[in-house]
Amino acid sequence: MESKFSKKNTQEKVKEKVITYCSKEQWKSRFPFVTWLPKYQKDWIISDVIAGLTVGLTVLPQGLAYANIAKLPIQYGLYSAALGGFIYCLLGMSRDITIGPTAIMSLLVSGYGVALADDPETNDPTYAILLAFFCGFIQIMMGIFHLGFVTNFISSVVISGFTSAAAITIGFGQLKNIFGVKMASESFFHDFKELIKVIKYTRKWDTLLGVSCMVVLAILRCCKQYSDRQTKNLQGTTMSTQKKVLLKIMWLFGTARNAVVVMLTCGIAYALKVNGMTTVFTLTGNMTAGIPPLRVPDFRAPNILEVLNSGIILIPLIGFLENVAIAKGFGRKGNYKVDSNQELIAVGACNLGGSFLSSYPITGSFSRSAINCQSGVRSPLAGIITGSLVLISLACLTPLFQYIPKASLAAVIIYSVIFMVDYKIVPNLWRVRKMDLVTLFTTFFLSLLLGVEYGTLIGIGVDLLILLGPISRPGAKTHKVGNVTVIQLERGLNYPALNKVENLLDEHVMFMGGVNSVIFDFTHVADTDYSVIEGLQNVLNDCKLLNVQVAFACVRQKVNIKLSRSNIPNYEKFMFKTVEDALNEFSDNDLVPEEDEEETVMGGDGDSDRYNKVPEKMVVEIET
Amino acid sequence: MESKFSKKNTQEKVKEKVITYCSKEQWKSRFPFVTWLPKYQKDWIISDVIAGLTVGLTVLPQGLAYANIAKLPIQYGLYSAALGGFIYCLLGMSRDITIGPTAIMSLLVSGYGVALADDPETNDPTYAILLAFFCGFIQIMMGIFHLGFVTNFISSVVISGFTSAAAITIGFGQLKNIFGVKMASESFFHDFKELIKVIKYTRKWDTLLGVSCMVVLAILRCCKQYSDRQTKNLQGTTMSTQKKVLLKIMWLFGTARNAVVVMLTCGIAYALKVNGMTTVFTLTGNMTAGIPPLRVPDFRAPNILEVLNSGIILIPLIGFLENVAIAKGFGRKGNYKVDSNQELIAVGACNLGGSFLSSYPITGSFSRSAINCQSGVRSPLAGIITGSLVLISLACLTPLFQYIPKASLAAVIIYSVIFMVDYKIVPNLWRVRKMDLVTLFTTFFLSLLLGVEYGTLIGIGVDLLILLGPISRPGAKTHKVGNVTVIQLERGLNYPALNKVENLLDEHVMFMGGVNSVIFDFTHVADTDYSVIEGLQNVLNDCKLLNVQVAFACVRQKVNIKLSRSNIPNYEKFMFKTVEDALNEFSDNDLVPEEDEEETVMGGDGDSDRYNKVPEKMVVEIET
Repeated sequence: MESKFSKKNTQEKVKEKVITYCSKEQWKSRFPFVTWLPKYQKDWIISDVIAGLTVGLTVLPQGLAYANIAKLPIQYGLYSAALGGFIYCLLGMSRDITIGPTAIMSLLVSGYGVALADDPETNDPTYAILLAFFCGFIQIMMGIFHLGFVTNFISSVVISGFTSAAAITIGFGQLKNIFGVKMASESFFHDFKELIKVIKYTRKWDTLLGVSCMVVLAILRCCKQYSDRQTKNLQGTTMSTQKKVLLKIMWLFGTARNAVVVMLTCGIAYALKVNGMTTVFTLTGNMTAGIPPLRVPDFRAPNILEVLNSGIILIPLIGFLENVAIAKGFGRKGNYKVDSNQELIAVGACNLGGSFLSSYPITGSFSRSAINCQSGVRSPLAGIITGSLVLISLACLTPLFQYIPKASLAAVIIYSVIFMVDYKIVPNLWRVRKMDLVTLFTTFFLSLLLGVEYGTLIGIGVDLLILLGPISRPGAKTHKVGNVTVIQLERGLNYPALNKVENLLDEHVMFMGGVNSVIFDFTHVADTDYSVIEGLQNVLNDCKLLNVQVAFACVRQKVNIKLSRSNIPNYEKFMFKTVEDALNEFSDNDLVPEEDEEETVMGGDGDSDRYNKVPEKMVVEIET
Repeated sequence: MESKFSKKNTQEKVKEKVITYCSKEQWKSRFPFVTWLPKYQKDWIISDVIAGLTVGLTVLPQGLAYANIAKLPIQYGLYSAALGGFIYCLLGMSRDITIGPTAIMSLLVSGYGVALADDPETNDPTYAILLAFFCGFIQIMMGIFHLGFVTNFISSVVISGFTSAAAITIGFGQLKNIFGVKMASESFFHDFKELIKVIKYTRKWDTLLGVSCMVVLAILRCCKQYSDRQTKNLQGTTMSTQKKVLLKIMWLFGTARNAVVVMLTCGIAYALKVNGMTTVFTLTGNMTAGIPPLRVPDFRAPNILEVLNSGIILIPLIGFLENVAIAKGFGRKGNYKVDSNQELIAVGACNLGGSFLSSYPITGSFSRSAINCQSGVRSPLAGIITGSLVLISLACLTPLFQYIPKASLAAVIIYSVIFMVDYKIVPNLWRVRKMDLVTLFTTFFLSLLLGVEYGTLIGIGVDLLILLGPISRPGAKTHKVGNVTVIQLERGLNYPALNKVENLLDEHVMFMGGVNSVIFDFTHVADTDYSVIEGLQNVLNDCKLLNVQVAFACVRQKVNIKLSRSNIPNYEKFMFKTVEDALNEFSDNDLVPEEDEEETVMGGDGDSDRYNKVPEKMVVEIET
């Protein structure tokens, strides 16, 4: 009766869930623009346009620079920045997020077989675009099946480790452009060795330009910070219009500092060229002009899975992780809620859609989202403005981009990644939990040594091992009563703990000689899995060979059902309600010949209390 | 005082451990032959020689065949079988284990960039040999640092899934040799498609030979089983010498069936050749004769880490897993104990040493160990006999090996792997724990689709996710007292659970509007990690922004210490001994302006009971 009742309940629940899933509210939550667009106020449009343009002025130089990190021809950075805003506007829940290429995603892309040639300009983007497609597909699937929780297993310590390593790898990989030398970037240590070899070929004008750019960037950043501070301090007080305008200009130049530096150096390079001095700076060179064609990713490329490798799993996860962290952060600040599964679908759609416009994997950018927020964005509509600006630039400005000196783009990258190095976490970890330093250093150094992709994967593994240590070594109390060993396990028994149980047996029972018996006290074992059951089966067989008697006592219902359904022969023989029952059984048996044993057990005094009295069928029904 | 006492204890313990580690007993356990060699009895030598030769007759055809699975020139299978026995004899603890090439290790080797060409005969073994070197190095390191427990995280369900998939992949990959067609083997589905394309070129004599070989193998296997049964049944009774000899011959032919089939077909092919019919069967062809030269693996090969990839981690683990399972199994049957860390060192040394003799990664073979055991092996000395036989064959018999038909080797492989397909686990899992079917099918189908290496890694991941599900979603009770939400977590709080806590906050507190407060009841939170502490810090900041008051109640010492060392400003403000204290605090505060809050807290009635009264320094000392 009870079983039927609970079954009906489950059915009803499923029905209810299906109804909820197809309800109007659910569909609304899947297309958030349905909610915010009707509430859109006219005066918001000005804020959105300003924010969109400001973000656009940042994404243009960043896009050009990040393509270099991804080891792709320079226009692919802009292709990747074009479509995200449009799609996110339809599906995204956060008004602050701006989707596009980021430094870390670019680095990850460069690690997955994309870099077939040393010179980014001649690299084939086929696999990077395929990566965007699969990344989007997997993210959408994860969103639909509510699998976003997988990223919970990437701890902030691993994130800190790989972010710092990525920043150093990216920054160091750009030094070649500051020095104006040619070399292939790979991992940090590889680059370090290579750079020492070629540093004698340094081009002094490139270096001068690069360093100057960084100085200008630092000054402009200070301008912005000063403006922010002043505006905040003087809030409420009256300010002269002059000062107000000055602060606003400082803010604008500070915020769009990347664009300012790139445009300035581009102008200088152009002026030099007009005057016949073409070889002073190393320039970006020709790029394909125009909006990228709408094209299906090339699925006929050979060995897709081999080339994309673990990137097909890692990149969607890291991308989502970056995006959802930003969305949630700004959500709390702006007092709006973000659903992580909807974010997965949104960012997945941006990747999937983008791949048809030759984009490589993208995600929410922290720096640009902050600019968006500070510029007073009101709705995701700003993303459309940003995207339009990128498309217009692709259509009209590409002839100019060839004059951008490589050193100035490198300066933009280096100056933005140095703030990503999170050295402050080390003393914090030292104080709070030293064990986590193992994870941090493993992730950090292996990321530098083998590349961020491997460092991160191994870091996640180390983190899990630290987390799972206690699970694989459950506490156990053993005590002896005569030649009976009682083993009491102190927590759940899952497959990582099986080995410990076997070792306990070997130590206390198996190789002790003489007549031995063992009682497993399962009081604290709440649940178990198939591997453990199978392992116990083998243990029982081995015990039979060595003439060791085995009993299980205090087995909880959940575990008992699983044991009863296993292939343990004469299953009932081994089950006792209490340790005392089992002990009594064993002491009785010592006097009885083996043939009679089973009979004695069946008629034993503890019999009526035992689990084996519960008919198997009934036990099964209760669970279903 | 207590702290000093426990410190001294630790020091003493370390000292004790160091002494134990350097003791004579320890060194003896590291070279087990020191123990068994002095006890060696003269008449054991006969048993050992018989067992060694019987195993040798199996390893010769297997070695030749497995090289094909590993996509290497045929002699490398024998190179891999040569040295293992010698080294294991010095370091191994199990008399039954025979180290050498196995089907699964060969398949894994083929998956890691070894297969540069389609035809095994022209493949470059450089990376396979490097893999053996690194595999050995990592296994020895794991053994020294007692890291064997890592394999506990590979459950028997994953092992079953990947073994079955490997068997099918290997078997199917050999069908081309049965049909006498040429194609490159990769994953199962790739091979399936390719085979359909080329099946029209089938060479009927090859097919006839392959099928005949399988029939002969099946008959010989039945002979062995019949002999085993008869010998067991008639044990103790008197048998005619004639019958005894007959049974013994049946047993020998059955056990050495692979060698019988290969020698027979080799003879037929040679006879045909002598009569001028060279094209009837596809033959193995020329192989390099002689013992492999002693040579350091080629560390100058390009992109070693990129090519070896995750194999560098997976192959040592799988190899060890195979080996230790066999050693423990036979150990229990033979009543001797096996130390898994010593086994790691032993099998690691076999790989490391083998790599200098052009071996690819090897491990203990189940089928050959079983033959070893059944042949009545007495000590690891038998491994030396086996190794010597292999070396002699390499020196003298290689001119003959070129006549071995490919179809007969393929038959040997197919007939040995079909028994590895573990279909029986499916109904067992269905009965015992359906959730584990997800792991099984993921591992199995992804192994077929993407290759065993990826399938296994993803399978391990899925298994961990199922195991960690409860950790990432700790149960939580929430109840409301006025506008105060009390959240009681029901188990330890580790980084995978952080997201759940944030979601609980969002759901119950953050976006509810009005004045809200939240109390975290940490009664059941036994421990935590840095990521959680950092996450709580961020939550506190967000709460401040949204004017949500937060308190922690019933915080245990271990967690309290970590919180106290974090960067939470005014840490003491948030800590209360009981939920009631915190509730009182909040109801008091409602009437007091914010500036006074801290003062009120400091002088509150529950103050004397609070943790913050314990001086921080003291708390620290107690832990160390």
